[in-house]
Amino acid sequence: MNEFDSHELHEKIEELLEQKNIKALKALLAEVNPVDVAEALEGLDEKDILLTYRLLPKESAADLFVAADPEFQEVLVKGFSDVELRAVMDEIYLDDAADLIEEMPANVVARILKNTDAETRKSINALLLYPEDSAGSLMTPEYVSLYPSMTVEEAFARIRRDGVDKETVYTCYVTENRKLVGVVSVRSMLVAASGTKISEIMHQNLIAVETTDDKEFVASQFQKYGYLAIPVVDREQRLVGIVTIDDALEVMEDEATEDIEKMAAIVPTEKPYMKTGVFATYAKRIPWLLLLMISATFTSQIINSFESALASCIVLTGFIPMIMDTGGNAGGQASVTIIRGLSLGDVELRDVWRIIWKEVRVAIVCGLTVAPVAFLKVLFIDRMLWATDINGILVALVVSITLMFTIVVSKLIGCTLPLLAKKIGFDPAVMASPFITTIVDALALLLYFGVASSILHI
Amino acid sequence: MNEFDSHELHEKIEELLEQKNIKALKALLAEVNPVDVAEALEGLDEKDILLTYRLLPKESAADLFVAADPEFQEVLVKGFSDVELRAVMDEIYLDDAADLIEEMPANVVARILKNTDAETRKSINALLLYPEDSAGSLMTPEYVSLYPSMTVEEAFARIRRDGVDKETVYTCYVTENRKLVGVVSVRSMLVAASGTKISEIMHQNLIAVETTDDKEFVASQFQKYGYLAIPVVDREQRLVGIVTIDDALEVMEDEATEDIEKMAAIVPTEKPYMKTGVFATYAKRIPWLLLLMISATFTSQIINSFESALASCIVLTGFIPMIMDTGGNAGGQASVTIIRGLSLGDVELRDVWRIIWKEVRVAIVCGLTVAPVAFLKVLFIDRMLWATDINGILVALVVSITLMFTIVVSKLIGCTLPLLAKKIGFDPAVMASPFITTIVDALALLLYFGVASSILHI
Repeated sequence: MNEFDSHELHEKIEELLEQKNIKALKALLAEVNPVDVAEALEGLDEKDILLTYRLLPKESAADLFVAADPEFQEVLVKGFSDVELRAVMDEIYLDDAADLIEEMPANVVARILKNTDAETRKSINALLLYPEDSAGSLMTPEYVSLYPSMTVEEAFARIRRDGVDKETVYTCYVTENRKLVGVVSVRSMLVAASGTKISEIMHQNLIAVETTDDKEFVASQFQKYGYLAIPVVDREQRLVGIVTIDDALEVMEDEATEDIEKMAAIVPTEKPYMKTGVFATYAKRIPWLLLLMISATFTSQIINSFESALASCIVLTGFIPMIMDTGGNAGGQASVTIIRGLSLGDVELRDVWRIIWKEVRVAIVCGLTVAPVAFLKVLFIDRMLWATDINGILVALVVSITLMFTIVVSKLIGCTLPLLAKKIGFDPAVMASPFITTIVDALALLLYFGVASSILHI
Repeated sequence: MNEFDSHELHEKIEELLEQKNIKALKALLAEVNPVDVAEALEGLDEKDILLTYRLLPKESAADLFVAADPEFQEVLVKGFSDVELRAVMDEIYLDDAADLIEEMPANVVARILKNTDAETRKSINALLLYPEDSAGSLMTPEYVSLYPSMTVEEAFARIRRDGVDKETVYTCYVTENRKLVGVVSVRSMLVAASGTKISEIMHQNLIAVETTDDKEFVASQFQKYGYLAIPVVDREQRLVGIVTIDDALEVMEDEATEDIEKMAAIVPTEKPYMKTGVFATYAKRIPWLLLLMISATFTSQIINSFESALASCIVLTGFIPMIMDTGGNAGGQASVTIIRGLSLGDVELRDVWRIIWKEVRVAIVCGLTVAPVAFLKVLFIDRMLWATDINGILVALVVSITLMFTIVVSKLIGCTLPLLAKKIGFDPAVMASPFITTIVDALALLLYFGVASSILHI
């Protein structure tokens, strides 16, 4: 079992390294999952990292390498002898190798490719040619392929012979003239008689993706159908690779993070927070801060153009933040719901009228709840009922009517803007809260001053 | 391949039903994945749903049932004969059966349990006893267990005999006196000689979770270690079930949605947007709208207490939205980053000082960028340089100094509040953008009026 957390493991390894107790360290490493070792080695100096790596059981070394961060992989590759580097490149899967090549600096890449055999190099290069977010860039060509005419016994012999190098052996792909014609699981092969033909037990109504499909779509197929691997075909339906569920898991998590960052007005980051430097973090945040600050010019202008009205009834100023924030919140609720729904495939463009109709009704009910509460709040909590210089009841009426309209307008904009973005091929998440807030702020102020003018005659 | 999308498939099925072309419908259903059929059947009337269900190939029927939504499952169960119901309950896995029981109304549950054999009923009841978000509620007891002394040949015989009913056969669990002592993959069994003892090829340094572990933690273990299934043990390290990766995928997606909803001031919903009624959607949004509206009382009070200062320099009012929004954005960037980092395990509580130190530096650099840009914007875009009644340069100075401080304060609050929430056992996501916005609004206004008082002497 996992007895240590990564922090404890780090300290334990550091202690054994200091004591130069190589024997105990080796014994410890044999007991711990290589993924945990990778995490625990962070922060050690390069000499100690390499020493520890060399003490790992042979089968764990490649696992640790794949689990490590790019920075850490770079340290390892730079410290490796050619023999060690070749061993790792032989061991890791091609999709991981392609990812490695993409992450490393040029001089390290040169050394890696020098220590990779010609055939592997060719396969890696082929993978690198696919667009960054495509199924092609996610897949590995290391799958087990069978023929329809094979028997189960022959298929098992093939898996035994070739399976070691394949990313998964549990789903095998049946091809004819390189075209994908079926899938067969090891499970159904295990329960079949050994003479059964593969064509008899394979599934033909199979789910496949094309190399150019977006990786988010690929991940959603895993979610939908519950498979462990999905085949990738080219335009002629020829099988070129498979995507395994562990890659889909990573895509889903990355995409969710990306959406969350965009909704919070951050340019998406690739690295975890603790590993991003101050200036990298700054660079991801400053564009939106500046853009939104400057776009607030509209709200300033609206307020300034009502300057004289405000001066004659200065108490109205105090409710500006409440009205703007409520609009922002109401709009954000709608936009974020639609954006997430679009990401998950729960919401589709063709639903636009049903969505608008629903949001309008939700907004009206929300408005009808918020408005009277606000009316009472303005009268009793903000003590407008006791105001002597103005008619407090009218002020409360202005605020609550404005809130009612603001909520309806905000929800309408919140739900339509992401759909519009999707329609014209923009990213719906970028249209989310902060951007909508700016629009909603301006509209809320216009509504406020419009309602105030007509009720208070200012 | 998947030739239709669910919308086209729906229309095709409807058309064939209208034509009463049962033969063509049956042929169509045999070619399509049951998950797609489940989606396509939505919106048909109950009679047609049952008719279509009965035309499905036998092996697809249970798959369709599991993929269907609860409302749809209810329609099916109500229309099923006892024989059909028993067939489904025999076919589906225990974790899916437990989920079904939880979702159905009491009278339907009674009928389901009546058509379930005593042993299955006992297992379902055991699963239902685990807390809702625990590993226990997620797991299924249907795993393949082996003994260390078995040979590979004996193990395969066991898989062939028992495997049909198990959720996965690809990872087998090795037990001794019900205690989990190792895991062995079918892959390693396939490449081993048939006389090899399981104890020789099993892994002993295994990753397991406890029944009481949170399901989010369980999902993160899949993400971290890349396994297809993870064993669940009780306090005495006895194996009681397994969680498979498809369940982890669902948990990850649900948790991301939940976090996003909380950040957008929505009480998390269980159902997809298009299937939630107007009042259900309203109920999830109104609590936060009301709470945040009322908490804006603070900002009103702050503005009102500076009423005379504002009256003497009414132009200051125009910049209130810009200052508040920039504070909200800056704080939201920090809080959302930390909340997501906590969810993914990239950020830990012990990092608190490193986080604060980093955010302070990021905030200072952001502030130093935003402040001069704002200074110029106020002078030239808002045309304060040409103001005749007041000193526009001083106003621009007030605004830009306020922004500088607001950004630092907002980022500080944004990063510490989620960590504080986590520390005291609250949900960090609830502390996110909207809540922080209210606090940041109030502080930004105090800063604004403070800076204005000292520079403009009002």
